[in-house]
Amino acid sequence: MNIALDAMGGDFAPRAIVEGAVLALENESSEGATITLIGRENEIKSVLDDLNCAHDKFNIVHADDVIEMGEHPTKAISQKPNSSIAVGYGLLKMGKADVFCSCGNTGAMLVGAMFTVKAVEGVIRPGIAGFFPKEIGRYGIILDVGANADCKPDVLGQFADMGSIYYENIFGVKNPKIGLLNLGEEESKGTLLTQAAHQLLKLNKNINFVGNVEGRDLFGDKVDVVICDGFTGNVVLKLGESIWDSMSPRGFVDDFVKMFNYASVGGSPILGINGNVIIGHGVSTPEAVKNQINLAVKTAQSGVSEKIKEFYNS
Amino acid sequence: MNIALDAMGGDFAPRAIVEGAVLALENESSEGATITLIGRENEIKSVLDDLNCAHDKFNIVHADDVIEMGEHPTKAISQKPNSSIAVGYGLLKMGKADVFCSCGNTGAMLVGAMFTVKAVEGVIRPGIAGFFPKEIGRYGIILDVGANADCKPDVLGQFADMGSIYYENIFGVKNPKIGLLNLGEEESKGTLLTQAAHQLLKLNKNINFVGNVEGRDLFGDKVDVVICDGFTGNVVLKLGESIWDSMSPRGFVDDFVKMFNYASVGGSPILGINGNVIIGHGVSTPEAVKNQINLAVKTAQSGVSEKIKEFYNS
Repeated sequence: MNIALDAMGGDFAPRAIVEGAVLALENESSEGATITLIGRENEIKSVLDDLNCAHDKFNIVHADDVIEMGEHPTKAISQKPNSSIAVGYGLLKMGKADVFCSCGNTGAMLVGAMFTVKAVEGVIRPGIAGFFPKEIGRYGIILDVGANADCKPDVLGQFADMGSIYYENIFGVKNPKIGLLNLGEEESKGTLLTQAAHQLLKLNKNINFVGNVEGRDLFGDKVDVVICDGFTGNVVLKLGESIWDSMSPRGFVDDFVKMFNYASVGGSPILGINGNVIIGHGVSTPEAVKNQINLAVKTAQSGVSEKIKEFYNS
Repeated sequence: MNIALDAMGGDFAPRAIVEGAVLALENESSEGATITLIGRENEIKSVLDDLNCAHDKFNIVHADDVIEMGEHPTKAISQKPNSSIAVGYGLLKMGKADVFCSCGNTGAMLVGAMFTVKAVEGVIRPGIAGFFPKEIGRYGIILDVGANADCKPDVLGQFADMGSIYYENIFGVKNPKIGLLNLGEEESKGTLLTQAAHQLLKLNKNINFVGNVEGRDLFGDKVDVVICDGFTGNVVLKLGESIWDSMSPRGFVDDFVKMFNYASVGGSPILGINGNVIIGHGVSTPEAVKNQINLAVKTAQSGVSEKIKEFYNS
């Protein structure tokens, strides 16, 4: 298992990223995994020295450039072939990495995926899946959370296929419950998009469609995989993260509330591309990076991106 | 101040509604207010007897029919002129009530408003404003929360005008901060709708536009009035309510968390119609109904519906 990690991505890079990688190596779930740190070699080595960590615990692949958070994704990917993100995707494409992780510019991560490993044939638009806590102690996933602000019904239909495959393979839950996020339970409710998507999902025999779900249904056990456009999903994901930010300073913390902390999961997979990619939060701490790497290992081990490819091409 | 209250609306009507009205009468904020209970006279009186409350503490206006929660709004309003909702709107239109409250069928409440008191001239689409807690101890409002699932940019532009007027008059906050709910801070981010709405809001000199806000910004003090389509607003409102449902059984309760309880506010005003209308939750308890009546009193006293009318017609 080879994990490519963008050492330069995120607000606290390279320090927080390299520190997270060191934590991940100590973690038994990453046993046998090799981590390749991508970025400015001298900066990476200097952090490793600071952490008293031998350089040879990692592969280090030098990349001169960094795509900054505010840069225009398409421009940046084209104009910075030596950026850590572009180099990371190069490794993924060549099969030198099983999974690529970055906490850098999300847009550039998406564009990079489309330019290198590309969307799975048959997938209209790849989506990003976010995690939200369920009171039963397991995460649910919601997609899309931002790759596609505006969506067509057939795109939501595919999110359901891909979300179902991802959930089953990551959480070992057969026939996970797929719900369409909507403002009412009745199938006639909602926007033109959700009304049309509801009909597609109802006819989809590959998924266990439980119908419309509402904002109040996420934390219960009515649904495992919530389908929505990337705009709504992004609002929900960030609102969820802010629950942790509001509750933890009050001391209102238990196992359920801890799951709202973005760092507990550490990242979001892109589904529907030819490869495993996990996008981390820009503010990622070492703990978050460690968990992002854990998720990356799980995602790559499950072979989920190949399974999605098989689903659309068999 | 005359408050018309649909005694038959909601899952626990008439009992919970009448009980809430009795609680409201004991409340000093409703002092001098007259409450008219609308519905089946014998059922209302029987609840009052149960509560050992004299009938003459209320006006009772008999209405034979009830619009059920699952009924088609437009059909129901047309076919049930003697329903409690239709009769309530009649009182509001004739000026016999200053405000009308119901916990009944939301769709019928909207259709009833459009058929009787009607939208304010110049308002493209009335909207419903929901409340969300801010950590500074005050509520923010978000609109629309469900009257208009699909919105055009100019409709969002008017939600900003109306939300600003409502917030200023209800909370006494001059130039409240208006934010556009979006998936990123940059103005180029978002859906076609939010990109276009952003430009309209930026040019609007009647409001204090603070730019895009994200799902994580609601509970802080970056924004007082959040503008979005009714689909997204509905998801956010219900997600917010479920935070109370998740936190309270854990004992994670303080003044901030209590504000997530829908019953603490008790209702949502329809903005942009010729009259004051507060829609309550279908599951409303007596406590929720009491708070709905308090909000109704505040809303009617503030003269906010007249002020919105003046805004568009002066």
